[in-house]
This record gives sequence, structure tokens and C-alpha cells, in this order.
Amino acid sequence: MTHRYPVHVHYEDTDMGGIVYHANFLKFIERARSAWVRDIGLDQNAMRDAGTVFVVRRVEADFLAPARFEDALEVETRTLRVTPARLEMAQTVWRGEEALFRAAVTAACLNTSGRPVRLPAAILDRGPDQPAPVTRR
Amino acid sequence: MTHRYPVHVHYEDTDMGGIVYHANFLKFIERARSAWVRDIGLDQNAMRDAGTVFVVRRVEADFLAPARFEDALEVETRTLRVTPARLEMAQTVWRGEEALFRAAVTAACLNTSGRPVRLPAAILDRGPDQPAPVTRR
Amino acid sequence: MTHRYPVHVHYEDTDMGGIVYHANFLKFIERARSAWVRDIGLDQNAMRDAGTVFVVRRVEADFLAPARFEDALEVETRTLRVTPARLEMAQTVWRGEEALFRAAVTAACLNTSGRPVRLPAAILDRGPDQPAPVTRR
Amino acid sequence: MTHRYPVHVHYEDTDMGGIVYHANFLKFIERARSAWVRDIGLDQNAMRDAGTVFVVRRVEADFLAPARFEDALEVETRTLRVTPARLEMAQTVWRGEEALFRAAVTAACLNTSGRPVRLPAAILDRGPDQPAPVTRR
Repeated sequence: MTHRYPVHVHYEDTDMGGIVYHANFLKFIERARSAWVRDIGLDQNAMRDAGTVFVVRRVEADFLAPARFEDALEVETRTLRVTPARLEMAQTVWRGEEALFRAAVTAACLNTSGRPVRLPAAILDRGPDQPAPVTRR
Repeated sequence: MTHRYPVHVHYEDTDMGGIVYHANFLKFIERARSAWVRDIGLDQNAMRDAGTVFVVRRVEADFLAPARFEDALEVETRTLRVTPARLEMAQTVWRGEEALFRAAVTAACLNTSGRPVRLPAAILDRGPDQPAPVTRR
Repeated sequence: MTHRYPVHVHYEDTDMGGIVYHANFLKFIERARSAWVRDIGLDQNAMRDAGTVFVVRRVEADFLAPARFEDALEVETRTLRVTPARLEMAQTVWRGEEALFRAAVTAACLNTSGRPVRLPAAILDRGPDQPAPVTRR
Repeated sequence: MTHRYPVHVHYEDTDMGGIVYHANFLKFIERARSAWVRDIGLDQNAMRDAGTVFVVRRVEADFLAPARFEDALEVETRTLRVTPARLEMAQTVWRGEEALFRAAVTAACLNTSGRPVRLPAAILDRGPDQPAPVTRR
């Protein structure tokens, strides 16, 4: 039930420390969430034309180890909780067996005037992923 | 008549080469053009709400010397030519007396269906800047 | 004792939702931390040449309200705790009297081989900011 | 002989105009050049550790049509000219049969003190691509 999404580290992602600029990990996991949304059949372009966009409400992020140029990463995404108002996901960025970044992300939907609206039925119907087994991978 | 706009180089602008990532110079000069647009009395938020956005049509850019973290830069912008369809500007990024980047940029306006529309009157009425004197700086 | 740093929202900061792309708030507050580091007399370029860089270890971030193109924001930064291994800061992004974003950030220093090293003396000697009064603004 | 590289448009690439922010096309084509460099057997991480980085010297870019969120693009890269000091490439970003962006890019190599150095032998030996046939695709 866990969603996996590949990310390749580009030159543009690095900073003068020689590693991936920290804020770019948030871009990496957002790409994975967008792919997850697409994979369950939602079209964010159509949603936006109809006046609904996803927004991030809260992120708790741990930067465990640096990523480097040309690294082949994988974002693992699990849905923890779903309510009409909020979607909570656990996301980890892996390089092989090493976890580089881990985040808990809460997202919501807004209409064009910035008011919270109900999450799409496709997400509500799907519900959370099964809890991960105690031992992973 | 020349417009000047300050840019400070942030950590996020650098890459693993230890210098400003090349594409970010295009961001720096776009900030200066947006400030120029604001300074002549146009509101891009209101324009967008009314269905018009600026787009870049063409850029010819020379990367003369690298910029570094914490550099205090200045973008110099001059309007070369204005027609109802096109705005041509010459932009240079300076660090003190040293030119780091130089570009000729052509911009236009599109409506929400992506069709070209007339540039705002404030730009057409203003016209090009006087030619720069032969010797400068 | 609180540090204040202005941020102007550029076109490049926005996304197709018409608001600032969420990850860019992390860039805004990092600019403020870099300014804070500079203001207490540290030179991150010299530190890097000597083999030490700052890294972010943990971020807890709440996205309270959207920011928009041309917004004039202010980042407020307070040092909560300082140990030889960790610097903890509370940062808020304000638009006038409205808090748009709030984060707790933990930073550390690494050497060129990626090992944790002691924070600079200028930070250790300075210590945490006084607790904020109960009522603020 | 032409190199092809896929790019998917992410949410982070868009701006409040609802299209890809113009400067991001330069990132897209840089990713393709990095892939090309990798494909001919060069390791930019090792090059950098040995003190050589690629830099962009000049870009002539035409923005022909906007790209949008979720677009599947392809970057086509052809080597036009190679000298010990300069690598010139023609790059086009396609969405299916439609060219969205076209650029001529001149790159060079610098050492750690910022001086020009000879391009890697793998590039010099390879030389330019055959001229494209008059009719394409």
C-alpha cells in the first residue's frame, strides 16, 4: 500500500555546501504526493480549474543525512490519517537502504477564496494505508 | 532613466560549484523587471485578476563572471524598444564596477487563453529609455 | 533581542495556486538565519573555506495563511536554546500583524567529511534570546 | 546522435501565471546536458573533487509556448561545435510534436580559482553531432 516515487538529484538541487539544499527535500516529497494524487485518479489541473487546490498545513521534518548530486533517491509515502478536512502522510526519502529525510505532512484543500473545502472523495474513500509492519524493508 | 535594483545573493542561490547557479541570474533580472513594472504604476496582481500576464519571449544572456554567496549585486535595466506587442530591455547585473551578467530580454503580454494582447498603456506611453552615453561607469 | 528580516515576495516564489509555493517559506526563514549569523559577526564564506557548514537538522513548520506576489513580509527570529551541538530557533513570517508561517528550526555544524562539529564560539557565547513576553505585538 | 531526455513538470515549476516559470526551462535543459555528460562517461562529482566544474557562458533562448503542470516534456540536445575552450549545443524542449522552448548554449570548464581550463577529452574526442537532416521527426 506504500507509494514509491523516484527522484534524481540535479545540479540545481545542490548548494555551496556540496549537498542538496535542505528546502529542496520538501520539493522532492511534494512531487511524490502529486504522483500519489495522480495515481489515485485525481487531476490537479482540473481541480484547480474547478477552484480547488491542495495546500500544506504542517510539516515536521528530520534531515538525517545529506543527499548529493546524481543520487538516485526514492520517496516512500504512506497515508496515516484522512478526515474531510485533513490528509496526514508519512514520507521518507531513501538512498538505497539509508533514510536521508523523514517528514510528517498535513495537507488540506482550499477554494479560490482561500477557504477550507472538503477533500476529494477519491481520497476520503481510500482512507489510510495499513500500518507498516514493525520491521521494514 | 536607467532603473537600478539591488539583489543580495542567498545560500539558496548557490550550487555545488560554490557560485550562483546560472539560471538564477534570470530570476534576479526578472525581479528587477517586476520592480520596474511596479515603479511605473502597474499592479501585476490586478493585471492577472483581469486576465493579463507578462511572459518572456526571448533572452540572450552572457554569463561574464560568477557571483557568490553574500554578494551585493545591482541589476541595471534599460528599455530599448517598445511596440504594442513587445518590450525589449537590456539588463546588466553588477557587483560594484564589475559586470557579471548581461542580457537582452524580450517580453510580451498574454491573456488567459494564451493569446498575445497589447502591452499596458503605461509602458507604451513611456517608450524607450534614452540611449546610454558612450562611456558609462 | 528578536531579529527581524524583510522578505519581498517575487514572481518566482509563486505557484499555479496563485500563492507562495510552500517550500519557499523555508528559503525565506533561511535567509533570515543567514542574516542573523552575519549580524553576530560570522562569515559563512570563510567558515566554508575553513571546512565548516551549517546544516538544518529538524524543522517543525505550520503554514497558517498564504503569502502572495508583492507581499512585504518580515521574518522574526528568536534563539531558543544553544548547545555546542545544536542551535534551536523559533521563526515567524509576518505580513503586518498577521502570522503566515511559524517554524521551530534546529541547526548544527558539519565539517567537510560530514561529521558534526562544535558551533562557532560567537553563537555559544551569545546564548539564547530572552523569553518573549507573554503578550506580543 | 541526438540526445533525448524526459522532463516531467512539477508543481514547484509553475508560477501564478499558471504556467512553467520561464527560468525553469534553463533548469530543464541543464538536467539534459548533465545527463548527456554522464552518458558519455564523465562524472561531474569526480570532476569537481578534482577541481573542474562546467559553467554556462552564453544562452540564446526562445520561449515559444508555455508548459503546464504535469506536462511530459522531452529535451533534445545536439552538439554543434566543440573546441578545447567551448562546447556549443542546440537544445529544444518538446511536448509531443510541439516545440515549447529552443536554446543555443555555450558551456566551458573552470578550475577552482575560476580560470578557464580545457574541456574533458571525452567531449573533445567525441566532437559535434552530425548536422540534423533538413526535415526532422
